[in-house]
Amino acid sequence: MHSYQIGILGATGAVGQKFIRLLEDHPWFTITKLGASKRSAGKKYKQAVHWVEKTELPAAVADITVSECHSSNFGEVDFVFSGLDSSVAGDIEQEFASAGIPVISNAKNYRMHDQVPLLVPEVNPGHAELISSQHFDSDGKGWIVTNPNCVSVPLSMSLKPLDEAFGIDSVVVTSMQSVSGAGYPGVPSLDIIANVVPYIGGEESKVQTEATKLLGQVKGNTTEFRSFPIQATAVRVPTIEGHLLSVSVKLKNPPSDLDEAKKAFAEWQNPIADLGLPSSPRQPVRLYEENRYPQPRLHADREGGMQTAVGRLREGTVMDLGYVTMAHNTIRGAAGGAILNGELLAAKGYFES
Amino acid sequence: MHSYQIGILGATGAVGQKFIRLLEDHPWFTITKLGASKRSAGKKYKQAVHWVEKTELPAAVADITVSECHSSNFGEVDFVFSGLDSSVAGDIEQEFASAGIPVISNAKNYRMHDQVPLLVPEVNPGHAELISSQHFDSDGKGWIVTNPNCVSVPLSMSLKPLDEAFGIDSVVVTSMQSVSGAGYPGVPSLDIIANVVPYIGGEESKVQTEATKLLGQVKGNTTEFRSFPIQATAVRVPTIEGHLLSVSVKLKNPPSDLDEAKKAFAEWQNPIADLGLPSSPRQPVRLYEENRYPQPRLHADREGGMQTAVGRLREGTVMDLGYVTMAHNTIRGAAGGAILNGELLAAKGYFES
Amino acid sequence: MHSYQIGILGATGAVGQKFIRLLEDHPWFTITKLGASKRSAGKKYKQAVHWVEKTELPAAVADITVSECHSSNFGEVDFVFSGLDSSVAGDIEQEFASAGIPVISNAKNYRMHDQVPLLVPEVNPGHAELISSQHFDSDGKGWIVTNPNCVSVPLSMSLKPLDEAFGIDSVVVTSMQSVSGAGYPGVPSLDIIANVVPYIGGEESKVQTEATKLLGQVKGNTTEFRSFPIQATAVRVPTIEGHLLSVSVKLKNPPSDLDEAKKAFAEWQNPIADLGLPSSPRQPVRLYEENRYPQPRLHADREGGMQTAVGRLREGTVMDLGYVTMAHNTIRGAAGGAILNGELLAAKGYFES
Amino acid sequence: MHSYQIGILGATGAVGQKFIRLLEDHPWFTITKLGASKRSAGKKYKQAVHWVEKTELPAAVADITVSECHSSNFGEVDFVFSGLDSSVAGDIEQEFASAGIPVISNAKNYRMHDQVPLLVPEVNPGHAELISSQHFDSDGKGWIVTNPNCVSVPLSMSLKPLDEAFGIDSVVVTSMQSVSGAGYPGVPSLDIIANVVPYIGGEESKVQTEATKLLGQVKGNTTEFRSFPIQATAVRVPTIEGHLLSVSVKLKNPPSDLDEAKKAFAEWQNPIADLGLPSSPRQPVRLYEENRYPQPRLHADREGGMQTAVGRLREGTVMDLGYVTMAHNTIRGAAGGAILNGELLAAKGYFES
Repeated sequence: MHSYQIGILGATGAVGQKFIRLLEDHPWFTITKLGASKRSAGKKYKQAVHWVEKTELPAAVADITVSECHSSNFGEVDFVFSGLDSSVAGDIEQEFASAGIPVISNAKNYRMHDQVPLLVPEVNPGHAELISSQHFDSDGKGWIVTNPNCVSVPLSMSLKPLDEAFGIDSVVVTSMQSVSGAGYPGVPSLDIIANVVPYIGGEESKVQTEATKLLGQVKGNTTEFRSFPIQATAVRVPTIEGHLLSVSVKLKNPPSDLDEAKKAFAEWQNPIADLGLPSSPRQPVRLYEENRYPQPRLHADREGGMQTAVGRLREGTVMDLGYVTMAHNTIRGAAGGAILNGELLAAKGYFES
Repeated sequence: MHSYQIGILGATGAVGQKFIRLLEDHPWFTITKLGASKRSAGKKYKQAVHWVEKTELPAAVADITVSECHSSNFGEVDFVFSGLDSSVAGDIEQEFASAGIPVISNAKNYRMHDQVPLLVPEVNPGHAELISSQHFDSDGKGWIVTNPNCVSVPLSMSLKPLDEAFGIDSVVVTSMQSVSGAGYPGVPSLDIIANVVPYIGGEESKVQTEATKLLGQVKGNTTEFRSFPIQATAVRVPTIEGHLLSVSVKLKNPPSDLDEAKKAFAEWQNPIADLGLPSSPRQPVRLYEENRYPQPRLHADREGGMQTAVGRLREGTVMDLGYVTMAHNTIRGAAGGAILNGELLAAKGYFES
Repeated sequence: MHSYQIGILGATGAVGQKFIRLLEDHPWFTITKLGASKRSAGKKYKQAVHWVEKTELPAAVADITVSECHSSNFGEVDFVFSGLDSSVAGDIEQEFASAGIPVISNAKNYRMHDQVPLLVPEVNPGHAELISSQHFDSDGKGWIVTNPNCVSVPLSMSLKPLDEAFGIDSVVVTSMQSVSGAGYPGVPSLDIIANVVPYIGGEESKVQTEATKLLGQVKGNTTEFRSFPIQATAVRVPTIEGHLLSVSVKLKNPPSDLDEAKKAFAEWQNPIADLGLPSSPRQPVRLYEENRYPQPRLHADREGGMQTAVGRLREGTVMDLGYVTMAHNTIRGAAGGAILNGELLAAKGYFES
Repeated sequence: MHSYQIGILGATGAVGQKFIRLLEDHPWFTITKLGASKRSAGKKYKQAVHWVEKTELPAAVADITVSECHSSNFGEVDFVFSGLDSSVAGDIEQEFASAGIPVISNAKNYRMHDQVPLLVPEVNPGHAELISSQHFDSDGKGWIVTNPNCVSVPLSMSLKPLDEAFGIDSVVVTSMQSVSGAGYPGVPSLDIIANVVPYIGGEESKVQTEATKLLGQVKGNTTEFRSFPIQATAVRVPTIEGHLLSVSVKLKNPPSDLDEAKKAFAEWQNPIADLGLPSSPRQPVRLYEENRYPQPRLHADREGGMQTAVGRLREGTVMDLGYVTMAHNTIRGAAGGAILNGELLAAKGYFES
């Protein structure tokens, strides 16, 4: 049986709140420490937070006293989840890792670090082995694992079955991203009600890069990225949760017809299906046949927000296939993805000392 | 001086209302006849219509008695604009043309007809010459001209400068379309508030085809389509007016750098600039430099809703360039585009008898 | 133990779908028959329905063959829930009741019938006794019970504690109603995105009347309505689920201060608390202290969508108190309310033969 | 002929931008100075501002160098419009007035000042006479005039005809306010998309007070407020522009029927109709007969955004009448209202020295 005490870094932010909500009744992980900025430190969590989740603030967490994000305040935890803003995540996560505390991070800072796994359990569970190459602390007890950007999650998960079957040659993607992706307060309503904003700062470079690491191979103590190009356009639309991607993909060995492409999704094997991870969706990648599906408002919550939906799979005229894909950006694409990473690493024994 | 009496077919529908609003103070065209279904015929327009425009129903039109859409009721008009639904436009437009009444149509029915020009004045004004090949009536007085689908308008207008400068090789486009594109009542609010619907019936095939006719050449009595492929994904987003397109384009002779691409837009010559058409925008294609522009809610109304906006022009990783483009779907992409077609044909003398 | 076979009338409509979703794992009620219009009859439910719920169509229902809504097709059921449109509910519900099949209806048709209880279990559970006065069939086995309009539910539930403590003198209410209240397709998106429509046909008269029956007394074989006036304004706002009401209330014996008013809510006793009804919320009326609460998008789903929320309780300048109240309009205010009525009547033995 | 040089205080904010847009081609007033915070001072306006208006930044203003808001920088102007935030408006406006520069302010700080007119030209033009009682500077050349809160504008304008005809006894109002009322960045989209927030800090006390000053009488050197109570609930809804109010009103001498109430609106005389003010709407208060009107998105822009719309006028059950009213909150309710105040004062000779 797994039983761990964990801490949340960036506990008062939007991602931090999602961690707390998703972990409320978690069978393996119990929140015992909360970290936030100096402004919140010393307050009870219920007083420090502007709670924006739809569910009640969990009673077990409400009265925990918030600490500053320093390893000395997190002595008893087995590891931490980090929902820190990237402006501070770099230093803080390094400090924790150096002090021997594993960090499962949602922040972007270490995603491109040579020895840090960028991990989606259904896509590249084996990349976890990079952990042993890390040198944040001298005895290897502290390390960092990251999950990708919220767009790269459904992109890599939907590309994975196609890559295994046909090989990816190149990808053109337009991501229509919900406002929750910008955190809170985030996107001003005057900007986005009845509107589309055709730019999200820094987003496209992440989308163009991360999937090539996720679909890459660990070679020695680093990851060999894939060489296929991704051309990305990221826009903001007035949805709440769920990023919808329009994807066109050229394949190395294209299927002979659409049925063969559908079969690639139907026959794809989830590599973590047998691990019994609590947050693992039964069907990580679901192919909808209905033309009008998937839709962010209707389907982002399916399987606890952990399922990647694919729809409108069809033959292309410029590239081989076209499809749309969608995942819950703050669950599958952020806190939920990190928790699944934590579960994978727990199942593999990375937290045993 | 141009002075014409005109009729509106489909006058009570969303496109018909837009015709009436846009023609309220038109210097050349005066509405004298309104055509609608049998249900509305015999009523005064103000009683027959569920007016959804933001401006007042024009007083000069309010008391016109609506007729059924048959040429015998439109004896005195010089030509008609058709905002008919495609389910009835085929027969009715043919009947008018056969009776010697020119039809400037927004409907899709004759867009692919060999002798019917699919016309965007700034893109292919010369295609008007196809009119003389038509045989709807024996003496050639009745004919049909169409404008393209609301997505094909900004797509063709934004591709035109690039085509002239570099030659189009292939295009991948995702169009994020506003609810007004579906008419009234159109899209149920339960479907689209805080949502994206990744499918619009019949839309993608139009987008994949029409621009290749628009950018084609008239050869003898038909149009030679261009051969470049367009791969389209059409989705519905909760905007009111303005379709925003994310475009990736491969070019035959790509520019050496981004500045050269920008120069293609800056130096492109509007072929109808000198005609003094009342609805002609000063700047038909505007390139925005600001990352966050253009946006449907902020910019769709610029230049009376007749301007096509381009933004986020940048080098691509899969195809040569990426950009977004946007136009007002019910003005530039429908009624306003048809009116500009009418003005072009008036200026060229097509309505002289 | 309660175990009943039930039918759903109007099964393909928006309310019917909600019944099916809410009853998916119901411990007492099992759906065995589905009724809809002639157009759907004979089809499997999954083929007849345009499913708009966020969850999957329950497998146990998907393959049930839909029947026309006639009692002869519903022989084996213990009772039916009716989500019929009011245009047909009058005749059909009467036919079922006359045939000896109890009808728990969400339709408005019989709400004002002298012998038909208009029932909210927490407000007027005793009104169920009116059932015995009904004469739809000669042996009294068939009868009709209704739940109120979706606005009258939170209005009556929030007024109940105040009425018990202070007596209602008069009420002014503005209801801001979500689009799901109009069913599907319902409100056109062009009408409501970024807009408010200050009129909902027929709504205000229901709001002004129903609460005075709910808070009234059964006297003999009829209900004595209360005499206090309600002045209602009903507007449509672009929310999905949850009607929010702004209420001003004058009281017969006003509290001496705000705390006394709060105490009325805190100390109010839920009359069905001890019955163990499966859909009964632990806290039927929750008073929020936070200024910004309740909000439709955040709180409509609390307690399975069965809780009425109250907030912003404060002293008034014209009337004694002001507050806002909100309930999930398609659960608490429609299908969920009807199910709770069914549970109440089951617990009281009304379905024993 | 009137010709004045004017300055804008708070020029980079949302209200300041609206002043600049509305004054672009103003026949009387020319913007020559712009004031903003120290952060913007010294920059050209086009560099200092994050322009959020739909129209282009006016070229004549784009290159004006922004100054700090001190009278010494505004030597040549005849007067200033203030769009300052209330956190700084108190001191700055006083400093300008003390230096002999008249201030037409949209800020709330001096609205309740005894000698400062709270002015809506169609409601209480005579209140301008209070100016002569002010002592901000010793020779009376500097003074302050304010316009009311954006809700109080349509409330007072719609109550005025009823007050003249029947006398106001008491008012209950729920205001459904658009996001532009909170400025930019203002309301986070996560709070308001598909939602209603039942609280706007500080708003209700303004709504409950200002109309009683506007409808009051100048007596000597102060305004005698009216004594009728207003009970207000202010909520935020996801509209862009236009606050819609649901109003219930009790009258001292109620009309005998609804027609008499309609006649009060029809026969009301606009007291400034003959002054020829450039921003004055032809019909300041328009009564819509259509049940579904007025709507913020359709009608807020009517008459340049300066018209107050009234609709759904009907008899009440608790109070004598019910109606809805709506005005463009950032034009009629803010910058446009202030400009009309400036025009009124110009026409009355207050800027002659």
